[in-house]
Amino acid sequence: MLLYGRMGSPFVRRTAILLDRLGIGFEIEPIAAIADQTELRRTSPVGRVPALRIGDRVLVDSLAIALTLLEEHDPEGAHFPRHGPELAEAHQRLALSNGATEKFVAAYYEQGRRPPEKIYQDWIDLCHAQSRSALDALDARLGDGPPDPVRFGYVETVIATGLQFMETQAPGFFEPERHPRLASLHRTLEASDAFRRRPAA
Amino acid sequence: MLLYGRMGSPFVRRTAILLDRLGIGFEIEPIAAIADQTELRRTSPVGRVPALRIGDRVLVDSLAIALTLLEEHDPEGAHFPRHGPELAEAHQRLALSNGATEKFVAAYYEQGRRPPEKIYQDWIDLCHAQSRSALDALDARLGDGPPDPVRFGYVETVIATGLQFMETQAPGFFEPERHPRLASLHRTLEASDAFRRRPAA
Repeated sequence: MLLYGRMGSPFVRRTAILLDRLGIGFEIEPIAAIADQTELRRTSPVGRVPALRIGDRVLVDSLAIALTLLEEHDPEGAHFPRHGPELAEAHQRLALSNGATEKFVAAYYEQGRRPPEKIYQDWIDLCHAQSRSALDALDARLGDGPPDPVRFGYVETVIATGLQFMETQAPGFFEPERHPRLASLHRTLEASDAFRRRPAA
Repeated sequence: MLLYGRMGSPFVRRTAILLDRLGIGFEIEPIAAIADQTELRRTSPVGRVPALRIGDRVLVDSLAIALTLLEEHDPEGAHFPRHGPELAEAHQRLALSNGATEKFVAAYYEQGRRPPEKIYQDWIDLCHAQSRSALDALDARLGDGPPDPVRFGYVETVIATGLQFMETQAPGFFEPERHPRLASLHRTLEASDAFRRRPAA
């Protein structure tokens, strides 16, 4: 298998960590979504990372890749619930985490991918407000027990890699005292062997 | 059940059509994602439509809602495959269709949600190129047989509602002669009873 993308992308990093945890070996093609956009689109039509080559097939989209791998390699639901209220809750946590990350990325693009005179602060503020609101809701849904640095699942991997990207790109945006459960999860997972094997940068 | 959002959103409309097809009754709360953003966030933390209230629970994100409903109400996989290569392919088609729609929406926001002097044409062009590239790949994946106006599934609903949004917001962006399979699917489903029951506007 060949994973396209760099660990600086939270969407690539969570995919690498999932592959590791499922015991699937892979190589990395460190293509950059911005600098190599035209080349990337030959493999990943939307022009986004990650993509995952499996023989002569290519899968795109981190969530589609994860749900495909989990269906095949996680029959007991050790990494992601397979049925019922647990599955519904897992999808809600993924949606809130991904929504928070996507809106953060939209603001990050506004700040970093256009001439200064085209930057529209109201848009950045709106995206950040949406991202924070999603983090508020996500923090409120998490349990109060200490995170498990060994037996965490895909949902926790998604949340922690998203938070790490925020911390790296805009230190101070994520406020640990406002989101104590998220902060605890982030700290614990970043210190885990699984995360340290795939550093974000 | 109560569905939050308006049929002008392709993400709301596909959810309404899925609920109809699963035989689930619901009411509509026609909240607007832009004008009612602050109020919307009290129900849908990311500030996006749709949200779906089921008793005292609220589900958000059209894909999370769909996968949750399908797991419970489509045990035979009549609307969405449940396993194996068919599931993998369904997720790829959803990812390509949603990627195309999301990039189209990003360009649409650039054009409609900021002062004219802040509009950055290069960003619009990049988003449109990514959207078109995804449509190219999606068209190439579809089969050549005629679409079934009665027994189509959730993937086809997602594709057709996305295309209808493009047609409505930027006539001419979607090119039927370039994407004949997508055009045929779009035409057939828009003429179906299921789609006509939930018009886009």
